Amino acid sequence: MPQPAGQHTVRRHNCALVLDAIADSPGLSRAGVAARTGLTKATVSTLVDRLAAASLVREQGPQHRAGPGRRGTSLSLSPEGPHGLGVEIAVDHVATCLVDLTGEVRWSAVSPSANRAQPAGRVLTRVAKAVRTALGEAAARDVTVGGVGVAVPGLVEASTGLLRRAPNLGWRDVDVPAELRRRTGLEAEVLVGNEANLAALAELRAGGHDGLRDFVHVSGEIGIGAGIVLDGELYHGTRGFGGELGHFPVSSRGPLCSCGARGCLERLAGQDAILGRAGAADLPTLLDRLEDGDRKAAAAVRAAARPLGTALSSVLNLLDVPAVVLGGTYARLFPWLGEPLRAELTGRVLSAPWQPIGVLRSPLGTEAAVRGAATAAVHTIVADPDTFIADGVLP
Amino acid sequence: MPQPAGQHTVRRHNCALVLDAIADSPGLSRAGVAARTGLTKATVSTLVDRLAAASLVREQGPQHRAGPGRRGTSLSLSPEGPHGLGVEIAVDHVATCLVDLTGEVRWSAVSPSANRAQPAGRVLTRVAKAVRTALGEAAARDVTVGGVGVAVPGLVEASTGLLRRAPNLGWRDVDVPAELRRRTGLEAEVLVGNEANLAALAELRAGGHDGLRDFVHVSGEIGIGAGIVLDGELYHGTRGFGGELGHFPVSSRGPLCSCGARGCLERLAGQDAILGRAGAADLPTLLDRLEDGDRKAAAAVRAAARPLGTALSSVLNLLDVPAVVLGGTYARLFPWLGEPLRAELTGRVLSAPWQPIGVLRSPLGTEAAVRGAATAAVHTIVADPDTFIADGVLP
Repeated sequence: MPQPAGQHTVRRHNCALVLDAIADSPGLSRAGVAARTGLTKATVSTLVDRLAAASLVREQGPQHRAGPGRRGTSLSLSPEGPHGLGVEIAVDHVATCLVDLTGEVRWSAVSPSANRAQPAGRVLTRVAKAVRTALGEAAARDVTVGGVGVAVPGLVEASTGLLRRAPNLGWRDVDVPAELRRRTGLEAEVLVGNEANLAALAELRAGGHDGLRDFVHVSGEIGIGAGIVLDGELYHGTRGFGGELGHFPVSSRGPLCSCGARGCLERLAGQDAILGRAGAADLPTLLDRLEDGDRKAAAAVRAAARPLGTALSSVLNLLDVPAVVLGGTYARLFPWLGEPLRAELTGRVLSAPWQPIGVLRSPLGTEAAVRGAATAAVHTIVADPDTFIADGVLP
Repeated sequence: MPQPAGQHTVRRHNCALVLDAIADSPGLSRAGVAARTGLTKATVSTLVDRLAAASLVREQGPQHRAGPGRRGTSLSLSPEGPHGLGVEIAVDHVATCLVDLTGEVRWSAVSPSANRAQPAGRVLTRVAKAVRTALGEAAARDVTVGGVGVAVPGLVEASTGLLRRAPNLGWRDVDVPAELRRRTGLEAEVLVGNEANLAALAELRAGGHDGLRDFVHVSGEIGIGAGIVLDGELYHGTRGFGGELGHFPVSSRGPLCSCGARGCLERLAGQDAILGRAGAADLPTLLDRLEDGDRKAAAAVRAAARPLGTALSSVLNLLDVPAVVLGGTYARLFPWLGEPLRAELTGRVLSAPWQPIGVLRSPLGTEAAVRGAATAAVHTIVADPDTFIADGVLP
């Protein structure tokens, strides 16, 4: 039950309301924002001036409009405003990118880095170097970095921001934001999140699945990552650990997993399992063979549809979301994996007879997690622009 | 992002705000409601008068208060106001109850009824008879029935209200509210929902787990029902089918299930499986033997902890909720089931090392579903009292 806003929060609330309206409908005039938000034109004008002075909003030439009356200017989120800096710490690389307020990627870089079983300090020194390069790039473009988001392959505790466990890196209890701040002198806010959750966030904001507000995003790289989107929001779980699917028990007699159990999903349907069954050394080789119509390769991909379908049908029966989006490696395998997976889900999801299940391909490729990290940083600015203007790192 | 309320919705919104404050803090004065809601005292007084005239709120003697000034009267939800009528259509019985606005059960009845594989029309005629009895009971108590909730053991589609499939009844595509209205001449709103979801709702409102806002409620009767509570709200899923757990695939070589798959959770951990392993004819016999320290009976219950722990650990890894509440048959078996289940979960849930998992016993017993159905009906009144007053079935 919403409560009337206290006096001191009114500007903050209305500032967010105005920016949200502009983000939702680029091209609105000040009068249009007033009509949509229920605020007076005078209030809207004051707030738009404030947002424009901080480069959050830009105003462009007269709006095209038929009929009489003064032509309003057209408002939109400013692509020259503060950017989000995204970082991904993966097992075999470090990625960075800059995303503007509209969600466009303006710059990105990937450095191969053998991070597996390396001490956190050594890897974070490499990451700090990549962050400094990105900050230099932002400075060269004369844009502010309004926030930093870091995607990590592990369990991040929301209350402390600690990376509690990253099995594929071998890390425990690492305070990634503090370590990066210490190494870079960063002043902007640093968020950290699970890479699969942030990839799902990128999919929600930039995947182009028009109107799809509820889905499970799954990608199969070294682990299997899942992120849950419910009602247009990333679902984090009560402590930030939501969306773990890699250790879903598919087969009680399957191969032993590093977690100690048998037959975990990632041992049966992850990239390594598919490559192993196909007898392919790496993903490009597998893709070449698939393109050439190699039967063994196609069968190896099809064989992953069964365990993946078993796990995802349980997720869909539990959550009742209408679609699965395949990202990362699974997006590249989509032409061979999509239909067998749809068939598995149709046979197992209880509601499938009268509510067909969407099996969709992510257009974002392997940069989804780093893009999601930057998007999360941008999102904190757009969700509360007044605080950003008051406290933010402005030029 | 909340929008300012349009003029026509203001009274409706404020009426709900006032009733919500009173429901949250019974004993508030009119001035206290004004302070909590931010509304003026004059507005609060008008709205309280409206709510009191409809018997939704009662006012009692002067509030005990130290210090000077007029003593306010104490406001609370009226136990003599409209009641919710709950109905449960189970495989072997029909239950009904009346719940007042405060959530207290004021009357209940259970009739054994062999409903399995009976035509829906025949069963619904029995149900209508039970509903008429409950309506007569309400009339004898001189209370209005403000809404009816019906709990059914199957998939209820939110958009249509159709019971799409109830495997244990053998029903498909039944419009339960229309059938009941036709047979009883009911004018109150009739809601229908899945029995496990409604049991979870009852647990949330009346389970007494103070402050627990996120949990999975599981009960094991003929099927295995689960209901998910997230952030203090029952999670329905996008189409109303959320919370299905019975066909979770625990073992690829387990016994064949009626759904066509092998090793579904309800075949391995449901009441029938436990009774079968214990060699007990029915639940009272099993409980007697457990009380007497019978080892075979205790081993049969412990054996259910493993498949239940496998399924629930996957649910907890996916949703990151901090507790499982065991209801129905599982609540009765709690002294023998609780610890083995906690051990399974602790070994399998990835966050368990630093966030212990709660395994709690429901105090509600087998009436949770019917109580949840009545609670849902009451909840629609409390959530929107103005519409109830305008359109409701008032004396």
